[in-house]
Amino acid sequence: MSTHSIPADRHATRIARAQAALPAEDASALLLGVGADLQYLTGYGAHELERLTMLVVPAIGRATLIAPRLEMALAQACTASEARLIDLAPWEETDDPFALVAAQLDASDSRPEIQLGALGGTWGRLGGLLVSDRLWATFLLRLQATLPDAAFGLASTVMTTMRAVKDAEEIELLRRAALAADRVVAQIAAGPLVGRTEAEVSKEVLDRLVTEGHDEGDFAIVASGPNSASPHHGPGPRVIAAGEPIVLDIGGRLEGYWSDTTRTLWVTGDADIRPTDEFTKLFDTLHGAQEAQRAAVRPGLAAAELDAVGRKMIAKAGYGENFIHRTGHGTGLDGHEDPYIVSSNEAPLVAGNVFSIEPGIYIEGKFGARIEDLVACGVNGVDELNVSSRDLYVVRG
Amino acid sequence: MSTHSIPADRHATRIARAQAALPAEDASALLLGVGADLQYLTGYGAHELERLTMLVVPAIGRATLIAPRLEMALAQACTASEARLIDLAPWEETDDPFALVAAQLDASDSRPEIQLGALGGTWGRLGGLLVSDRLWATFLLRLQATLPDAAFGLASTVMTTMRAVKDAEEIELLRRAALAADRVVAQIAAGPLVGRTEAEVSKEVLDRLVTEGHDEGDFAIVASGPNSASPHHGPGPRVIAAGEPIVLDIGGRLEGYWSDTTRTLWVTGDADIRPTDEFTKLFDTLHGAQEAQRAAVRPGLAAAELDAVGRKMIAKAGYGENFIHRTGHGTGLDGHEDPYIVSSNEAPLVAGNVFSIEPGIYIEGKFGARIEDLVACGVNGVDELNVSSRDLYVVRG
Repeated sequence: MSTHSIPADRHATRIARAQAALPAEDASALLLGVGADLQYLTGYGAHELERLTMLVVPAIGRATLIAPRLEMALAQACTASEARLIDLAPWEETDDPFALVAAQLDASDSRPEIQLGALGGTWGRLGGLLVSDRLWATFLLRLQATLPDAAFGLASTVMTTMRAVKDAEEIELLRRAALAADRVVAQIAAGPLVGRTEAEVSKEVLDRLVTEGHDEGDFAIVASGPNSASPHHGPGPRVIAAGEPIVLDIGGRLEGYWSDTTRTLWVTGDADIRPTDEFTKLFDTLHGAQEAQRAAVRPGLAAAELDAVGRKMIAKAGYGENFIHRTGHGTGLDGHEDPYIVSSNEAPLVAGNVFSIEPGIYIEGKFGARIEDLVACGVNGVDELNVSSRDLYVVRG
Repeated sequence: MSTHSIPADRHATRIARAQAALPAEDASALLLGVGADLQYLTGYGAHELERLTMLVVPAIGRATLIAPRLEMALAQACTASEARLIDLAPWEETDDPFALVAAQLDASDSRPEIQLGALGGTWGRLGGLLVSDRLWATFLLRLQATLPDAAFGLASTVMTTMRAVKDAEEIELLRRAALAADRVVAQIAAGPLVGRTEAEVSKEVLDRLVTEGHDEGDFAIVASGPNSASPHHGPGPRVIAAGEPIVLDIGGRLEGYWSDTTRTLWVTGDADIRPTDEFTKLFDTLHGAQEAQRAAVRPGLAAAELDAVGRKMIAKAGYGENFIHRTGHGTGLDGHEDPYIVSSNEAPLVAGNVFSIEPGIYIEGKFGARIEDLVACGVNGVDELNVSSRDLYVVRG
């Protein structure tokens, strides 16, 4: 990450808010490995290694980033370190980094304000320790062995609520990523497609995502013909033929923030083989449901209700059994994060949530379709981050 | 994975060997999430999701792959499923997948041969459960809550030894990946480089890795000038200038198997600015050490001894403090896996190990160099998977 679109002040606020949220969870510290929580608090977009990198955030006092010595140059360059918001603690190849974590917790234990029990919780080694949700088991089991008296929980109990409500800068990064993905959709829909393999088109998508401004292209589902009935189809050697649909589901990261856009195409070929009535009915049902769901977005609406808006319409048209996944997922520094738009999630949407709306209808062995937008929940309703047409893209070539 | 270079028989053998290894660990089952262990046993190269995918491998009986319904089409297509070596158990969006894992363990408990205590261990819910090392904390904590009486350990205790000794087919996949990376090195060293950003060159490397046969290009460190002193430098906006070194460390995956190659370049520019004596001394020291380490590879040699071979030579030349990382790491379905070539690893190399030999010398703020090969430990000594020159690549343009 060479640019810092998120200012240091934001990181200071985020760290303070995370610390302030710990007592209510009866937790004494956050232990964050490589991943979105770490990047959210510090701006450090580290890569995952079998060597432990861990930000120790005590409820009171300064946070310390424990990292392997050979990662230190990168760690030092992160926003929170440059702004002196956190301390750094390198470890050598032969050190035990878990002992370093314990030492940091002991240090926070010994500070007078903690010993006075000012906040009324249990602290340090004995208090709850909240680890990042995607911390590897190999690290968690070592931490559990090093700190046998601690109760371990998930950092998401603190971080999820914060991260699910995006700052203005975050929404603009997500919008830039979404618009870049929109441009790639238009480029792919310009063809040619007939006679090419899914894998070739997928590679073109990944390249174009970067050309259009992503730091990385991360996925490019190109599910043609009967493959379009498999929601997470991996692009393969199948050659795209005239007279069939393609589900194009693409995304990448721009300064850590994900795009995720799906459009459905129909390839007519020179023979001009138009969509069948059966497919048109399916697609029109889907299109109406997705449009209604976008229009329904507003603060206070339960995620489950938003899911139901589309699901009812799809079921009414006879496709209830063919909409086999939830409506959507939050997006930010993780591709999939809170809020999840699923029937089991009764939590109300709040302004600043950013999530996908991506109903799909799949007829196994035959074909399927999906339409996906990223939207922000604005104070007054939906703020659409994608702007490209949701209609069926009819491609001749 | 569209092709199956690893035959189904291998998967059958691997599953049987993993099961046979469980009693010695006092473990009743392996619980493998998405990742290399899962792919090793089944051929299923699943992508990581917040929805649980888990292969339950009991010590006796058939393994079951628990996966979200919308991943089922992909799961069914894996080698082990196509060959009917495992059973599949889909879960719906509103199911509790952890309860499904517990149910599978209960089912294995209730089989008569287990109740008879034929193998003398403790089984099912009460026995040791070995989770894959990179299973996310969010899954592990849920499993621990669902199965409070179980002792959790790491699957690597069983899987590492197996995976560290490659089959013939695996070595050939790793060789194909390494040779593809070698071709990319030659293409990049053909220039031009002066005046381009590290990020541009990095992007070209990732594209070329795919063109040369990788399924994905995963990393391309292009560390120029003073950045070459940072072992894991992220390619950035720095413009490559004449009269400086570049550390080029590149890799990707070919049918799941990683390449990982580092070469050091020197860019002279039109002004023909040759390496300084200071850099030449550093590079020659490194070159000699890396060559000696490759030559030393043989079964029975401790990994620590192999590390020492190069470290002693580098220290003798006065760069002891500047070789700040271990010599190497195993490579296979994970980019970094056993055996680690580090001073703390006294385990002897065995024929079939595949690992990197990548000493480096780094003068902070100034420059650095690294040379990295992947090698297999053959019965009679080293089998070099990379074949490109390890000399300094002097690039004019």
